[in-house]
Amino acid sequence: MAFQYLTNIPLEKAKKEYLKLLKANGMTPSTEKIKVYDAAGRITAGPVYALISAPHYNACAMDGIALKAGLTFGATETTPVFLTAEQYVPVDTGDPLPQGCDAVIMIEDVIATEGGIRLFQAATPWQHIRQIGEDICAGEMLLPSYTEITPSSIGAMIAAGVLEVEVTKKPVVGIIPTGDEIILPTTNPQEGDILEFNSAIFSSMLRLWGAEPVTFPIVKDNLEQIKQAIRDALAECDLLIVNAGSSAGREDYSAQAISEVGQVLYHGLAIKPGKPAILGYSGGKAILGVPGYPVSGIIVIEEILRPIVEYLGNRLTAEKLCEEAVLSKAIVSTLKYREFVRVRMGYVQGRLIASPLNRGSGVVSSFMKADGIVEVPQGVEGYESGATVKVHLLRPTQELRRNLVATGSHDPLLDEISDLMRRTWGDISMSSSHVGSMGGIMAIRRGEAHVAGTHLLDEKTGQYNTAFIKKYFPSGGVRLVECVNRTQGLMIRKGNPKNILGIKDLTKEGIRYINRQKGSGTRVLCDYLCRQEGIDTSKIYGYNREEFTHTAVAALIASDTADVGLGIYSAAKLYDLDFVPICEEQYDLLIPDYAWDTTMVQRLLQVLKSESFRQRLEALGGYTLKNPGTVRERF
Amino acid sequence: MAFQYLTNIPLEKAKKEYLKLLKANGMTPSTEKIKVYDAAGRITAGPVYALISAPHYNACAMDGIALKAGLTFGATETTPVFLTAEQYVPVDTGDPLPQGCDAVIMIEDVIATEGGIRLFQAATPWQHIRQIGEDICAGEMLLPSYTEITPSSIGAMIAAGVLEVEVTKKPVVGIIPTGDEIILPTTNPQEGDILEFNSAIFSSMLRLWGAEPVTFPIVKDNLEQIKQAIRDALAECDLLIVNAGSSAGREDYSAQAISEVGQVLYHGLAIKPGKPAILGYSGGKAILGVPGYPVSGIIVIEEILRPIVEYLGNRLTAEKLCEEAVLSKAIVSTLKYREFVRVRMGYVQGRLIASPLNRGSGVVSSFMKADGIVEVPQGVEGYESGATVKVHLLRPTQELRRNLVATGSHDPLLDEISDLMRRTWGDISMSSSHVGSMGGIMAIRRGEAHVAGTHLLDEKTGQYNTAFIKKYFPSGGVRLVECVNRTQGLMIRKGNPKNILGIKDLTKEGIRYINRQKGSGTRVLCDYLCRQEGIDTSKIYGYNREEFTHTAVAALIASDTADVGLGIYSAAKLYDLDFVPICEEQYDLLIPDYAWDTTMVQRLLQVLKSESFRQRLEALGGYTLKNPGTVRERF
Repeated sequence: MAFQYLTNIPLEKAKKEYLKLLKANGMTPSTEKIKVYDAAGRITAGPVYALISAPHYNACAMDGIALKAGLTFGATETTPVFLTAEQYVPVDTGDPLPQGCDAVIMIEDVIATEGGIRLFQAATPWQHIRQIGEDICAGEMLLPSYTEITPSSIGAMIAAGVLEVEVTKKPVVGIIPTGDEIILPTTNPQEGDILEFNSAIFSSMLRLWGAEPVTFPIVKDNLEQIKQAIRDALAECDLLIVNAGSSAGREDYSAQAISEVGQVLYHGLAIKPGKPAILGYSGGKAILGVPGYPVSGIIVIEEILRPIVEYLGNRLTAEKLCEEAVLSKAIVSTLKYREFVRVRMGYVQGRLIASPLNRGSGVVSSFMKADGIVEVPQGVEGYESGATVKVHLLRPTQELRRNLVATGSHDPLLDEISDLMRRTWGDISMSSSHVGSMGGIMAIRRGEAHVAGTHLLDEKTGQYNTAFIKKYFPSGGVRLVECVNRTQGLMIRKGNPKNILGIKDLTKEGIRYINRQKGSGTRVLCDYLCRQEGIDTSKIYGYNREEFTHTAVAALIASDTADVGLGIYSAAKLYDLDFVPICEEQYDLLIPDYAWDTTMVQRLLQVLKSESFRQRLEALGGYTLKNPGTVRERF
Repeated sequence: MAFQYLTNIPLEKAKKEYLKLLKANGMTPSTEKIKVYDAAGRITAGPVYALISAPHYNACAMDGIALKAGLTFGATETTPVFLTAEQYVPVDTGDPLPQGCDAVIMIEDVIATEGGIRLFQAATPWQHIRQIGEDICAGEMLLPSYTEITPSSIGAMIAAGVLEVEVTKKPVVGIIPTGDEIILPTTNPQEGDILEFNSAIFSSMLRLWGAEPVTFPIVKDNLEQIKQAIRDALAECDLLIVNAGSSAGREDYSAQAISEVGQVLYHGLAIKPGKPAILGYSGGKAILGVPGYPVSGIIVIEEILRPIVEYLGNRLTAEKLCEEAVLSKAIVSTLKYREFVRVRMGYVQGRLIASPLNRGSGVVSSFMKADGIVEVPQGVEGYESGATVKVHLLRPTQELRRNLVATGSHDPLLDEISDLMRRTWGDISMSSSHVGSMGGIMAIRRGEAHVAGTHLLDEKTGQYNTAFIKKYFPSGGVRLVECVNRTQGLMIRKGNPKNILGIKDLTKEGIRYINRQKGSGTRVLCDYLCRQEGIDTSKIYGYNREEFTHTAVAALIASDTADVGLGIYSAAKLYDLDFVPICEEQYDLLIPDYAWDTTMVQRLLQVLKSESFRQRLEALGGYTLKNPGTVRERF
């Protein structure tokens, strides 16, 4: 058995050997004949030759008369030629050229006269005639092999009498989801249920690459059942994905199942996420064991399966579109793996800025939000913040140029702004990362964002934001724009079972607090409130447990993972939590002068001033709006 | 009636007013709810919010044990903590965190011992747990409005309990083909039949833009029938294409039909091809009258209909990808229209070269072959050869960089080379234009091609090519590469009804000759043969009637449009013509030093030397191969 236990094979080596092995075992593209009507986007399997000429007859190209050109020789303005009705034939555009004729004269040049017509200009032989083969000659090659069929080539083929065309068959890729805990998607799962959505992701990816995906029923964690499912699927598929159970845990049967039905080339790749991939095969059919975490799965499918699908489809692998970008945050990687880090991107001051997203391999939303991927090669420890790195773009740069880069403090209102901007203009997008108010100020200082939400309370003055801006922008260059006032308070589980009435109660026995991250305005506020009340925060259980958004804090309280957290009213309302209001605070937007005149920022200001924005915030609850979108102060 | 008779409205004005009018009349995108599984590539109609959090429970992220972290505090390498079986719970990855636990310890770190386990390291609270909402928090906005749904966003939606999503409905576009002479495609049409392939082209284009095309049955040239067809189609479509009959000829009913069922904004645009377009409407539904010639139709649909389809689909109009290129041939245009000229393109010596294709509006193959489109604005007379012009690219520049630009003398063997290159490497394409041997030499001299076929006979020496190359490349810089010897002769209709036995017979009464264009090697040969025989070519009927390829000459003889022409054996064989051999000639390839080391040329040489090439030419017939691909002489 070629089985190898959790190896750490470099990606390129594994890819190359796998493809080579599969080819050596007989993997090869197959072909099918289809109607030309259905052929758009398909790949020719061989050269396509014209069966008939186009036009297939000599066609009159004008409305007018057809005749023998010789009859008109000598005709001029002063010496017209007279012809009788027997000497010409009236024709319309598209009519076959009548027998014996070799020219067409436009109706505008024909002067009717008694007993016939007069012509004041001689005709050139073959004028205004679309000759046989003008467009296509029978027998000529229309399309070479391995060429994508476009709409106009469909037209050309039909014109040339080609109604069926031999194309490369779409490879059929089977997807077998496995796992005791895996269930079909539902809106109401039980604890421990894992929704099976990987097959939906993989299927859509495969369709984009020209494959035909087939998802099989979910198989339990049972070696024999998995083996049987693989055998059955192999009978009808060109290649196979066995999803999850690809690692080496107690209930991971994929590697054994694949090695008993077929063989395993490698188990374990030097990539992250995606390490526990299984490169298996049965004859010339790939059987790929894919990790269960969606991000790992996507990367393994993209890196390992895509080249195979493209080979079977006779398609070229599209070159990865790459650009250089500046990292807004360090990426720490390990020497052992090649790591794929999703990033959000945008152009700020003409520089392309890349902000790393959550790297958890279970965080599928990181792929949804990603504009690009930074690869940290094996043997490289990572990149520093501010480093220039190569990014594989997932969206074209034109779109990235119209991306409003928002950062700083989190508030769900940012998403509403994003939606309102798109609904109004369509060509603008907005990406926000939640790094807290201080993080936002620093990002603006480094020239890495267009706007940052901030609500930092200066304890000395009781004022928001200005003291901090003066400190971090001593020479100015930014504007503070009014956004909203919002209510901060304690979010508590519905019914307040632990009877929490204020900040003082946070140190009580059995109270589990959930905090926001250091540097966030809400954390600053919480520290301040505790100091005011003379509370030692080390006495608060969970004070070091940090989340990055109001919503995440609310979600943990709602699920009884924590009892209380400081946050805004709209988050409490969203999760139907009890709320003890503590103070109203000023949530402003910091906008640097360098971004002020961009279309994105100007449109943002328009949205802030709009009636729709007021309506949306009213629906969210807990906000007071005075003059959003106006400049509070210019620094 | 708003009807206007064949106006000449500038395109941008017409587009803008048409879209504005349709919107004012109530045209607006509509929405539908679909399964998330089917949503890839669709556009969100509104913001999508998460219904549940993902994960929706606190999940163990490792195989191992779950416990209360507090139990492990103080554990070190030297002071392990001992726990009994009641104090922890064995868990697998993905299991719900057991009640009362707040940490998971990896199985590797758990040391089994009598009566329980020992731990040598303290656990941090919440370690190795995927907390509720780590990926997505219930209530957060997953996608804003008008956003294309990607594979990973499908995954994120399902994870967030969103199984159905409101998307923009694909606009339904009806296509009504009209015309007495129009028939459904067949491989065996009669004279005068016009194959209806426009609807197949338009449908494929519409699908690419996110619309749902519906093709209706062909309607005869009858006003009432056309009106009825429009009324019926309007009932089920969002917009309508009435194809052909859009001009003002005897049987052109479209404008009248549209104006009687609805209204006409403009009839006649200042574009070429595409002038006789009809911008009609009925309420908020566009009824577009589209010219019958396919090239005109494609341009009208692309320019007028695409923005409407994209508006209805809430899609952004993709920006036209443009590059500057050098024209290899002048484009003469008229001041009156904005003209769209299809061009083939390739990089030669780092410069992007654009060669205009046949501009006939019936020549659908020109669109199939096109790599780009040059727009000559209204009011501009055209561009000179060598001018730098802006080209709208139809293929990405990466592909154009791998395009072998072949020119010069025509031979069907060039298409076979093109096919063999693609079959062997896939990532290389070849575009050949047929400008004759002299044209090819000139193109190489101007630095506009990688290779040119040439077979020019020097009358003085009886030698091929060398004399011409010495004359036009006095300082060298090119190589002459052996390709094939081929048989030239007279191609005559099967059975030789007019008893043509040699060059001498060309002047006989009733013989219709068909010639090749001046500058082609075959024309040079014919002139030479006539001089040898002492024939006055002005006495040959049709000597000035020129075609650009051997195949075109053969096609005209096969269809009895001409009786005889000089050409190569393979063309005669293709059309099953009689053939009177006259001489064997040397068909070489001229390759400039500047292109010699390109991948394209090196691969071309490999193909010439291959066994497959020999086999292909044997099948074509009339060729002798000695050492194809070897350098005859370096200049």
